[in-house]
Amino acid sequence: MTVSSDLALIESRIADAVDRFMALDADDTIEGPCLTISREVARQALVSSEGGKRLRALLALHAFDATDPQGHDDDDAHARGRDAVLDLACAIEVFQTAALVHDDIIDDSDLRRGKPAAHKALGTTSHSASLGRGLGIMLGDLLATASVDIAHAAAQRMPRPDMIVSTFLRMHREVEIGQVLDLAVELSPLDEPERLARESMNVFRWKTASYTTIAPLEFALLASGRDPRRAHADAMAIGLPLGQAFQLADDLLDVIGSSRSTGKPVGGDIREGKRTVLLADAISGADQRQRRTLIDMFSSQSRGDDDVRRCIELFEGTGAIDRSRRRIRALWQGTLHAIGDLRLPPQDERTLTEACMRFIPIIKA
Amino acid sequence: MTVSSDLALIESRIADAVDRFMALDADDTIEGPCLTISREVARQALVSSEGGKRLRALLALHAFDATDPQGHDDDDAHARGRDAVLDLACAIEVFQTAALVHDDIIDDSDLRRGKPAAHKALGTTSHSASLGRGLGIMLGDLLATASVDIAHAAAQRMPRPDMIVSTFLRMHREVEIGQVLDLAVELSPLDEPERLARESMNVFRWKTASYTTIAPLEFALLASGRDPRRAHADAMAIGLPLGQAFQLADDLLDVIGSSRSTGKPVGGDIREGKRTVLLADAISGADQRQRRTLIDMFSSQSRGDDDVRRCIELFEGTGAIDRSRRRIRALWQGTLHAIGDLRLPPQDERTLTEACMRFIPIIKA
Repeated sequence: MTVSSDLALIESRIADAVDRFMALDADDTIEGPCLTISREVARQALVSSEGGKRLRALLALHAFDATDPQGHDDDDAHARGRDAVLDLACAIEVFQTAALVHDDIIDDSDLRRGKPAAHKALGTTSHSASLGRGLGIMLGDLLATASVDIAHAAAQRMPRPDMIVSTFLRMHREVEIGQVLDLAVELSPLDEPERLARESMNVFRWKTASYTTIAPLEFALLASGRDPRRAHADAMAIGLPLGQAFQLADDLLDVIGSSRSTGKPVGGDIREGKRTVLLADAISGADQRQRRTLIDMFSSQSRGDDDVRRCIELFEGTGAIDRSRRRIRALWQGTLHAIGDLRLPPQDERTLTEACMRFIPIIKA
Repeated sequence: MTVSSDLALIESRIADAVDRFMALDADDTIEGPCLTISREVARQALVSSEGGKRLRALLALHAFDATDPQGHDDDDAHARGRDAVLDLACAIEVFQTAALVHDDIIDDSDLRRGKPAAHKALGTTSHSASLGRGLGIMLGDLLATASVDIAHAAAQRMPRPDMIVSTFLRMHREVEIGQVLDLAVELSPLDEPERLARESMNVFRWKTASYTTIAPLEFALLASGRDPRRAHADAMAIGLPLGQAFQLADDLLDVIGSSRSTGKPVGGDIREGKRTVLLADAISGADQRQRRTLIDMFSSQSRGDDDVRRCIELFEGTGAIDRSRRRIRALWQGTLHAIGDLRLPPQDERTLTEACMRFIPIIKA
């Protein structure tokens, strides 16, 4: 299996599953605006599901390839197991889409993956911004239910289906709590930057690592027949630092990346005034004048293009960008160490390491 | 078991389950605003969970009492089954709370069950209306996940756990689609009132009957060991007309009830300009002048106290209120007929009939 053939499989299976979930029964008698709008929502479910990088699904699949004891047999057992993991992997991606749809409503974002955010698109087709928001909330709810439904069906084809479903629901819960923490961290004062950095790293555990790295690894290990407690401990050891490194790299990319590669304008987090580890590190590393500038900038109602430019210079000048790079490298070492602890055959270790490294392309730089 | 002892059981079990789900691990290192806000959200989860009439949970429990073949034995089997049904019944109530939290954000409602709506309460404690809305969206997501988690755990103690969970997820999906349809029906033109009435009755199937009557009955029948297809058919036959009658009665209560019994101001639906079956029936039964008045009133941006009064008079004068009563009575006959088809012993039939009748106290009038 190549990465590109796996990606094609993932993409088509997500589309099929979402389409099936959103389809109304043929015998239903929905008519008029109800028919039009429910079709628009179903169409938007597909549009919102497209365009992800599918890193989470690939991690689940490739971690399964690397750890399944039948992974080297050419027989049916591994293929059948892989097929169930593939569905579970798609369920994680559908859950991410659900979370992003709600996230974009909360942040009132215009764009997602280079296209209009779901609630904006639905606002356009229904000619009402508030109706678009309402439909967007329901679309997020529907996709969240779809994700559990897909995971539940996949679990029936795996060892210990009850464990798979509980783990999937735990992932839901952690991300949802993570979103609460992510909103709350914005209320953190800026005059204790070391604490802000610590709090932000903790938020990353809940809102990002939970479903980005820990859950995909845990599902792969459960599907490989590992004892559930062992699977959870190993998934945490590898996935927690990896997920935190991924979020740090993502925040870094917002500042040093190009709009083309992220699908978002450069410095979007700065413009929104987001409390990030980068900001905390910049304040920690700033002299008194720089510190004043940063705090004033992030205490004001909004930030323009000049502020964004000045802020990126300060992130550079105070050493915050370097510190984020160092943080990422240290976390990556933790992940490598935990992968080593699995004592996999060298080829499998390489497969797993590559699947993990995809989350932080910045590490090669 | 008396109704009041069942209600006490339901109430305490919901509070325990929600509390457990929202609690952060003791070893977690959340601090600062993250700690404060996440505690507020957990507290609001409990507050929002209080005060329901628990009709759905009672229906599940009492339908189980009436249909469980071991229902008359004094042995442990029925008690164990009933305990699992009780958890499942609580899961339905938690799901309702989740749906109401999102519904109140979509409608921007101030009050729910006589207390501030969740997003408003969270807006007050966090000193920001927009943060309150964001936290409210996440609270709804968390409670929806909690409901599946409670149902999944309960299902492991019942026959065919996979069927129970699939049915629970189908219920989620139907209500979520129902909310989409409920938003869409507001776009229906008023000049085809018979079609509007038909569309509204169809929306009731999705947004109300699905989780209010059909699912509680289906869970009870599944827990009693009925064949899943038979359980679904019977639950539909009894629950669909009952759920539609319940929603009609609820809409009627908005017009003829008192603010004290509903916890909402009289005529709230009229004030919001909601497309209801009552409105459709009023337009159908109106003469040309009344019709013009109603259409003008519901086409304008807002309606004041005088409009509400005039509208209620028109609902009365055009015969719409009588027609709703007749609709409710005809649907109730359908439910009674379907209960009869179960061929239960007389005492059990009475138990089930009483549990169903609680949804439409208006029928006694």
